[in-house]
Amino acid sequence: MKERILEETERLFWKYGVRSVTMEEIAKQLGISKKTIYQHFTDKEQILYEVLQDKIGKHQSEMACAVVETTNPVEEIMNVLNMMHKNADQISPNLLIDIKRYYPQAFVLFRKFKEEHIMRSILENIKKGVDQGLYRADINPDILARLRVEQIELAFDNDIFPTDQYTMHDIQYELMHHFIRGMLTDKGFTIYNQYVHLKNEFNLPLYEKK
Amino acid sequence: MKERILEETERLFWKYGVRSVTMEEIAKQLGISKKTIYQHFTDKEQILYEVLQDKIGKHQSEMACAVVETTNPVEEIMNVLNMMHKNADQISPNLLIDIKRYYPQAFVLFRKFKEEHIMRSILENIKKGVDQGLYRADINPDILARLRVEQIELAFDNDIFPTDQYTMHDIQYELMHHFIRGMLTDKGFTIYNQYVHLKNEFNLPLYEKK
Repeated sequence: MKERILEETERLFWKYGVRSVTMEEIAKQLGISKKTIYQHFTDKEQILYEVLQDKIGKHQSEMACAVVETTNPVEEIMNVLNMMHKNADQISPNLLIDIKRYYPQAFVLFRKFKEEHIMRSILENIKKGVDQGLYRADINPDILARLRVEQIELAFDNDIFPTDQYTMHDIQYELMHHFIRGMLTDKGFTIYNQYVHLKNEFNLPLYEKK
Repeated sequence: MKERILEETERLFWKYGVRSVTMEEIAKQLGISKKTIYQHFTDKEQILYEVLQDKIGKHQSEMACAVVETTNPVEEIMNVLNMMHKNADQISPNLLIDIKRYYPQAFVLFRKFKEEHIMRSILENIKKGVDQGLYRADINPDILARLRVEQIELAFDNDIFPTDQYTMHDIQYELMHHFIRGMLTDKGFTIYNQYVHLKNEFNLPLYEKK
């Protein structure tokens, strides 16, 4: 039952954010009583906390695969972007805003994930890119990794990118391509262009192209 | 007297932030009594407000000159970067943090300046760059202008870029060059490289090179 509650709540949170989803709504969607939910969770924040823990775990595995299967850091970023696209349309822009404003414990979890896991992945990608001569040797990896991490939060900020003007897909696509292009050397551009052209010509997700 | 108070307070705010500068300190530095200051201003926030108004006015004129004197949008960004370098070392990182947290009226002034003036300048620069074939035609000018505006605030955020690890100069340099490179076409790179090489070879501020 706990698993079912987590699954359904995740679906509702991702679609509508956290604030507007009530315990009544979750119970109704599952065809169970609120009492049953409270047997497994003390409150909505606890469900959110466990949903996020679970999601972060899955995301780390997905990212790890995206990295293992790639032949170079440019492809790695392209794969991550594709992964984000697969997920972005399902995520309500309210989700991160709600968490940031009203659910401090869950936000700590997200922050920790951002600081430790995302930051480290990006930093490794940048260092690899510089080592392989695909990214400029004169960049400051720490500053750019920090910039990229903050861009992820910016994209979810409704004041900065109002949801009635931009889709999450457009923002992520624009920021990610701009981010990688800003680092590329001539050699890096040669490789980057292969992915971009492949995508444009065949309109295929890049991770299927090998 | 009002002018002298504004000048001296600006110097102190820029060097130490707003919170740690007291009315006593301002009076002491000018060799006047606090009473004299209160004849011209109701409180510290009012001085801050007028200092900012004045500074923003000057900055707009400087920016306007930087744009008029340039031959292309790439040079324009390089000039703005140089202007920022001239000023950045004089600015305490506490300044914007203090304003954001404790002086809501002054922050509204900064926000308005950011939203109206900076945003518009960047957007015009991007559109010009695309028209002249120096920036890619496939970028989304609104999203990238918004990104650049937010980078200015990011650079001042002590939680994101701790002042014991980075200088304002390093952060601005890194973010600005990364930002412009992310937009450049091959033709744009040819022009951009001229400025970067000139700077590296002669170690001269770019705005003196013509």
